[in-house]
Amino acid sequence: MPKVIKTEVEFEGRFYEEYIVLEGEDLSPWGPDRDREFRFVGKPQPRVDGPERVTGAAKFTHDIQLPGMLYGRILRCPHPHARIQRIDTSKAEKLPGVRLVLSAENAPEIPWRMGLTQLFDRTLRYAGEEVALVVADEEEICYDALDLIEVEYEPLPFVVDPVKALEPNAPKVHESGNLLNGAPEVYERGDLEKGFEEADVVVEGVFRTQSALHNCMETHGSVAHWEGDTLVIWDSTQHIFGVRAQVAQALGLPLNRVRVIKQYMGGGFGSKNAAGKYTVMAALAARRTGRPVQVLLDRFEENLATGNRPSTVQTLKLGAKEDGRLTAIYHKSILNVGAYAAWPASASGPTKRLYSCPNLKTEDYSVYTNLGPFSAFRAPGYVEGTFALESMMDELARKLNLDPLELRLKNYAEIDPITNKPYTTKGLKQAYERGAQLIGWEKREEVKKTRSTKTKRVGFGMASQIWGGSGGPPAYALVKINPDGTATVITGTQDIGTGTRTALAQIAAEALGFPLERVRVELGDTQWGVYSPLSAGSMTLASVGPAVRAAAEDARAQLLDVGAQVLEIPRDRISLEQGEFVDARSGERTPVQTIFEKLLNYTIVGKGARGPNPEDKNINTFGAQFARVEVDLETGRVRVERIVAVHESGRVVNPLTIRSQLYGGVIQGLGYALTERRLEDPRRGLVVNPSLETYKVPTVEDVPDIVAEMVDMPDPEANPLGVKGVGEPPIIPTAAAIANAVADALGFRVYELPLTVDRVLMALQRGEPSRGEDNK
Amino acid sequence: MPKVIKTEVEFEGRFYEEYIVLEGEDLSPWGPDRDREFRFVGKPQPRVDGPERVTGAAKFTHDIQLPGMLYGRILRCPHPHARIQRIDTSKAEKLPGVRLVLSAENAPEIPWRMGLTQLFDRTLRYAGEEVALVVADEEEICYDALDLIEVEYEPLPFVVDPVKALEPNAPKVHESGNLLNGAPEVYERGDLEKGFEEADVVVEGVFRTQSALHNCMETHGSVAHWEGDTLVIWDSTQHIFGVRAQVAQALGLPLNRVRVIKQYMGGGFGSKNAAGKYTVMAALAARRTGRPVQVLLDRFEENLATGNRPSTVQTLKLGAKEDGRLTAIYHKSILNVGAYAAWPASASGPTKRLYSCPNLKTEDYSVYTNLGPFSAFRAPGYVEGTFALESMMDELARKLNLDPLELRLKNYAEIDPITNKPYTTKGLKQAYERGAQLIGWEKREEVKKTRSTKTKRVGFGMASQIWGGSGGPPAYALVKINPDGTATVITGTQDIGTGTRTALAQIAAEALGFPLERVRVELGDTQWGVYSPLSAGSMTLASVGPAVRAAAEDARAQLLDVGAQVLEIPRDRISLEQGEFVDARSGERTPVQTIFEKLLNYTIVGKGARGPNPEDKNINTFGAQFARVEVDLETGRVRVERIVAVHESGRVVNPLTIRSQLYGGVIQGLGYALTERRLEDPRRGLVVNPSLETYKVPTVEDVPDIVAEMVDMPDPEANPLGVKGVGEPPIIPTAAAIANAVADALGFRVYELPLTVDRVLMALQRGEPSRGEDNK
Repeated sequence: MPKVIKTEVEFEGRFYEEYIVLEGEDLSPWGPDRDREFRFVGKPQPRVDGPERVTGAAKFTHDIQLPGMLYGRILRCPHPHARIQRIDTSKAEKLPGVRLVLSAENAPEIPWRMGLTQLFDRTLRYAGEEVALVVADEEEICYDALDLIEVEYEPLPFVVDPVKALEPNAPKVHESGNLLNGAPEVYERGDLEKGFEEADVVVEGVFRTQSALHNCMETHGSVAHWEGDTLVIWDSTQHIFGVRAQVAQALGLPLNRVRVIKQYMGGGFGSKNAAGKYTVMAALAARRTGRPVQVLLDRFEENLATGNRPSTVQTLKLGAKEDGRLTAIYHKSILNVGAYAAWPASASGPTKRLYSCPNLKTEDYSVYTNLGPFSAFRAPGYVEGTFALESMMDELARKLNLDPLELRLKNYAEIDPITNKPYTTKGLKQAYERGAQLIGWEKREEVKKTRSTKTKRVGFGMASQIWGGSGGPPAYALVKINPDGTATVITGTQDIGTGTRTALAQIAAEALGFPLERVRVELGDTQWGVYSPLSAGSMTLASVGPAVRAAAEDARAQLLDVGAQVLEIPRDRISLEQGEFVDARSGERTPVQTIFEKLLNYTIVGKGARGPNPEDKNINTFGAQFARVEVDLETGRVRVERIVAVHESGRVVNPLTIRSQLYGGVIQGLGYALTERRLEDPRRGLVVNPSLETYKVPTVEDVPDIVAEMVDMPDPEANPLGVKGVGEPPIIPTAAAIANAVADALGFRVYELPLTVDRVLMALQRGEPSRGEDNK
Repeated sequence: MPKVIKTEVEFEGRFYEEYIVLEGEDLSPWGPDRDREFRFVGKPQPRVDGPERVTGAAKFTHDIQLPGMLYGRILRCPHPHARIQRIDTSKAEKLPGVRLVLSAENAPEIPWRMGLTQLFDRTLRYAGEEVALVVADEEEICYDALDLIEVEYEPLPFVVDPVKALEPNAPKVHESGNLLNGAPEVYERGDLEKGFEEADVVVEGVFRTQSALHNCMETHGSVAHWEGDTLVIWDSTQHIFGVRAQVAQALGLPLNRVRVIKQYMGGGFGSKNAAGKYTVMAALAARRTGRPVQVLLDRFEENLATGNRPSTVQTLKLGAKEDGRLTAIYHKSILNVGAYAAWPASASGPTKRLYSCPNLKTEDYSVYTNLGPFSAFRAPGYVEGTFALESMMDELARKLNLDPLELRLKNYAEIDPITNKPYTTKGLKQAYERGAQLIGWEKREEVKKTRSTKTKRVGFGMASQIWGGSGGPPAYALVKINPDGTATVITGTQDIGTGTRTALAQIAAEALGFPLERVRVELGDTQWGVYSPLSAGSMTLASVGPAVRAAAEDARAQLLDVGAQVLEIPRDRISLEQGEFVDARSGERTPVQTIFEKLLNYTIVGKGARGPNPEDKNINTFGAQFARVEVDLETGRVRVERIVAVHESGRVVNPLTIRSQLYGGVIQGLGYALTERRLEDPRRGLVVNPSLETYKVPTVEDVPDIVAEMVDMPDPEANPLGVKGVGEPPIIPTAAAIANAVADALGFRVYELPLTVDRVLMALQRGEPSRGEDNK
C-alpha cells in the first residue's frame, strides 16, 4: 500500500512542504562492494540507438512529415519595446497558399509566462517577441506572407542593461517594476559582520558574465495534429509530460487527450524544459485548419526568443583567517532575466554550499530588461556563480600565499553547510587528488618556467564543482517480457541526446539477467508511457534508472516464480543468467523462451517506481577541473592546452557516454570562458549576433586536450542504483578553472567573461591588477 | 505470486494439455444481483470514438501515409494450378518509377501456410495466388509494371470440387493428398447403431452450402516501415500481437523489434486473424528499398486470396423417439478448404453440443482443392452446421407432427453433452420464449392463412444458436491515473469495428468510479500495449474486459489509499464516485485532481490480468432466431419480412453496440441464406464473381425488419465481469431460421444455400419434397 508522508524539500536554502508517496520497492541497493559481478552496468556500451542516429533513420521533431502538413512561421517584433496600434493581416491571408494567420486579432487570450504576457500580446517587450503566425502550404509562402502583414507599432522606452534597469527612472519592462518580486532573494546564515570582523584578510571583486545562448544542434519546434478530439504533438522537448500539462492547461484539454511524442532530439541544455509559444500556436493552427501544422524556429529566432543564460554582475567578498579558513562570504548578484521570468534567477548556489563558512549572506536580484527571456542553461546559476566564487578563492589564496588547492581543502565541507546534514557520499577530495595528478599540479611552477617565453605565458588553474544530485520521485517504469525471451522497457522519459536508452537498457538487462541485445527501451510518448520527470537537473538516470531497475526486478521475480514451477525446480535454487534459467544444483540451463512455448502468450509485466531520497542526508555531485593555458601577450589570445576533468557522480553506468558528457560539458564551458557572448546594442535594444556566424561556439579547432575521468563511487544511500547524475556537473567549473589559469599566466585577473582577446589586451594595457570595479 | 497449473482445455470434443498461469486478481464478480448500481455498464453508450469515425479523423491502415512511401502491388497467378517455368522481371524493373520487383527469383525462401508453400512459391495452387510484388513510386506505375513481368507457366491438372477431389485419381493439390491429415476428424459418443435402432423415426438429408466471402468494408493491407532495426507495421488485422509473432518468425526478428499498429479497422470477420503475404512482402520491400512500403489489396484480390467460408456437403441423419427425444445423430461433412489450411475445418460443432443426444458420430473431411484457401469466417463451421442441423430438426418435427420449438425443448441440454459439465448460465429457454413471443409463434398458422395468396406463401421458421463463450487468458491491461483526474487505459487489444474502445471505457469508468468522459482507452500497438488475444471467437470483451476491470480496481484501490491519507479520512470510510472522493461520514466530496495538486506528478498505474475460466463448468452463449418470410411462387423470390433475434451472452455492457452486433450478424446471415455465393467455374478452375457487383451482399433494400434483444443474464461464474461475448452468435442461426421459414411456406425443403430464385423455382418445378440427394 502506498504511504503518503508530509516532508520538507530543500532547494537552494529554502524549504518547501510537500507530500511524497512512498512507493519505491525495497530493493537492496547496488552498493560499492558490488556484491554481484555486473555484466553491463559500469561497462562501456556503445549507444543502442547508434545505428539509427548515424544512418538518419532516427526521427527528430524536424523530420516529422505528416500527410497534408502545413507550415507555420512566426512574425516577430523588430522593437525592444512597443505596443501594437494596428495589425492588418488581410494581404497575407489573400496570398495563395496561405491557410491561416493568427494574431492578437483572432487568437484566444492564453496567458503566458506566469500571466506576464499572452500567447499573442499587443505589448511586445523584446525584439524577437511573437506577433503573428502565418500558416501556409509551403515554408516559402510563409515568408512571403510574413512580409505582407502590416503592423503599426508604437515604440516604447526600453532598457537592456540590468543595472540601469534598477535605477528609479528606468523604463519599466512590466508595470510591477523591473525587480522580480520587488526584492532580491536573500539567504543568510551566521553573523556576516562578525565574520568579516574575525577575518585576517578580506578580498573583494566584481565579476561580470555574459548572456550565453544554448545553440542546440536541433532548433526548437513542434508539429501538432488533431486526431479527433485528441491533440498529438511532436515536440523537441526535455519534458514530454511537462509539455502535456502545459498545453492541456493552455487549451483547456484533459491530460489524456494530449499526446506528446519525442523520440530523438538534438539537445536542449535547459532551453527546452517547457512548451514554447510555437507549440501552442501549432496546436491552435492545427485545430483551425484541420490539418497538421509544423512550426520550427530558425537559428535567429531561437537565439532571440527561446532562452539564454542570464548575464550577471556579481560582487563577491570573502573574509578568511591567516590559515585560509573562511570566516565570511558576501555575494550579491544582479541577473538579467530579460523580459520574462518563470522563476527568480540566482548565482549564489555554489557560494552557499561549496565551502564550510559559518557567516554568509547572498543576495540575488533578478532584473527584467527588454531582452529575450532567460531560461535554464546547463547548471543554471552554478556556472556563473562558480566562476565568481572560484576566481575569488584564487585571489584569496594569492593574498594568503597558499596553494589554491590547499585553500580549498582547508574549507572542505564535511557536511552540507545549509542543511547541516551529512552527504551520502562525497568524492571531491578524490577528484582534487586525481585531477592534480593528471594536470601535474605539483610541478606547475616548473612547467610555467620552462614553457613561458617573452610573448607567451603559461598558467595553471583549477576550480571545484558542486551540484545537486540523484533526482528523485516520481518516476515510473514497466518491463514487459515477451514470449521470445526479449524484454521491452516502457518509460515516459526522453533521451535528449545523452544516451538514456543505452543506460536504461544496461540497467534493465543487468536486473533481469538478460543479454543486453534482448532489451529494448521505449520512451518519449506520454500517452503510452508512464510519468518521468524532465530531463534536466542531471536527474534522468538517477530518477528513471531506479524505477527501471525496480520494474526489471519485479519482472525477474515473476519470471523466476513461473520458471521454477514449469521446470519443477525449487524457487530458491533457480536463477536467471543471460536469458537462461539456471538450476543451481544441476547447473542445467533453460532459455527463457522455452517456458513461454508452454504458456501461450503469457506476458509478464513488471512495475517499478522511484522511491524517495533519504531525508537525513544530502545528495550532491562533486568534481574538480584543472586547466593549463597559454596566453599570447601580443595578441591577447588565450589558448587552452589541456583540461583535466574529474567528477564524482555516484556510480558510473556507462563509461562511454559519461565521457561524452564530460567532453561536452568542458567544451561548452570553454566556449563560455573564451568566445561565446550574446552582444546587445544598448542604443537600439537589439541582439546583434543571433547567428552561428557571429555567436562563436567552439569548433573542433578550439577543443583542447581533455582528460576526463570519473571517481566511480556507487552511492547506495542516494538510490538503489547508486547513481547521482552527470549532465550538468562538467560545465560548472570549466570557465573558473580557465580564468584562474589565465590569471596565473598573466599575474593578474580579468574579472569578466568571456576572456576574449580584446579584454585580455585591454587588461594588459591597463598594466595593473583590477578588482573588476573598472568594469562597472 | 503467479501460480502455474497444468490443465486440460477442451475444444470441439478434443482435449489439449496446457499450462495456465493463475494471475487473475480475486475480484468479487459483478453478479446478476447487481450489488451496486451501475452508472455506465449496461447503459446505452454511443461510441466514444464516434466523432473520429464520422469526421474521417480516424486513421485506418488505408489512411497511413508516410513520407517517401512507396506502393507495392501483387502479380497473381491466372491459373488454378501451375508451375512457373520462367519469370523475367527485367522489363518491369526498367520502367521509370519502379523501385523493386520481388519474386521467387530474388526473395528469401520463407515458409508459408504451415510449410505447404512459400512466400513466393514456384508452384501455384489457385488462381489468384501471389507470384511477384512490384514496388514503385506510384500505384499506377505498379499496374503498368505488373503487365511487364513475363511469366511462363506450366499448367497443371486441377480440381475445384471437394467431392471430386476425394476421388482416387483426382489431381493432387498437394503431394500428401487432398484430404487434410489423410483422414476425417471423427467424434463419437455412445453407440450410434444402437441409437438408430432405438429410434422410432429417422430423418436424413444432404445439405449443401456455398463458399461465402467476407467482403469487409476495408480490404486487407499493410504499410511497413523500418526505423533502424525495428520494423513498424500498420496492419488491418484482428490480432496485432499475432501479426507481430508471425512476422518476427518469418523475418527472424526479436519480438521487441517488431511493432504492429492498428488503430481503426473496417471489419475482419475472421479473414484478418493472421498476417497476410502482403504484410511480409511489405516488410521485405521496405527493408530492400529503405523506404516505407504500402501493400493494399483490392476487392478482386481479396476475394480470391484472403479466405472464405468453406463450402460444405453435409449428410445428416437423426433418430428420435415418438415423443421427439433424440436417440442418435450422424453427421458427415465434406468441407472445401481450398489450396491451404492452417487447421482442419469442421461443420459438426453445433451437432455435437446443441442437443442432449446420447449416441452420436460426426465426421469432418477437410478437402484441398485448387481454390483460394479458406479462413475463419464469423462463427466458422457453426453457421454451416447449424443450417443443416436445425433444418433437419424441423424435418423431424414435421415427421413427428411436433411444434419445432417443442422438439427443441424436448432435447434441451441441461449439461454440456461433450464434457458433461454444467453450464455457468444458459439462457436459451428465455431466448426461445421471448423470441416466440416477439414473432407471434403461437399465432403463426393464423397469420399464414390470412397472409398467403395464390402466388405468395408466408412461412415461419426458427433456429437455435450455441457457441463458445467467455474467451479467456492471457489478456492484460494497465490503468494510469493522470494528475488532472483523468484515466488512460492501456491495453493491447484492437477495435475491429465492434465498439471495443467504448465498452472498455464503460468498464474502466465503472470500476474506477470516474465519469466516463474522463476515461480514454488506448489499444492497437504491440510495442507499448500489453498482450491481448485476437479479436475473434467473440472473445475480446470477455477476455480484455475483466483485465481492464482488474487494472481499474487496482488503480482505484491505490487512489483510495493515497486519498485517505492526504484527506485524513479512515480508509474504510472513503469511496470514489464520479471522480470524487466521498467521505461516508460527512458526505464531503473532494475531486481526485485536488489531491494530485499536492502530489506533484504522482501517477498511479493499476495492473490487471485476465484470470482463468472455471474448470468445472462449461461456458457457452445461446440464442434463438425466428423468421417470417414470404415466398413468391411465380418468381421464386424469398422476401424475409422479419427476423427476431434473441441472444444470451451473459451481461450486456453496451446495449447500443450489442444491438449493432445483432443487426450485423442477422444481415450477414441473411446474405448467406439468400444471395451470397462465390461462383466457381469448374472447367476453368476460376472464381467468376470476385467483385461486389457480382457477389451479392445484402444492401439496405434487402434488410428486413429486425427485432434484436438480449437476455441480459450476467454470468458471474464465467469471469468477474459476467460477459460471454456476442460477436459471432447472431450470424449462426439466421440462415437456418430463414430456410425453415421457407420450407414452412413451401411445404417442402430446399436443401441448398443460398435460397436464390433459381433454386426455389427449380424446387417448385420438381413439385415434390426432396431430401437433397438430387443435389448431389
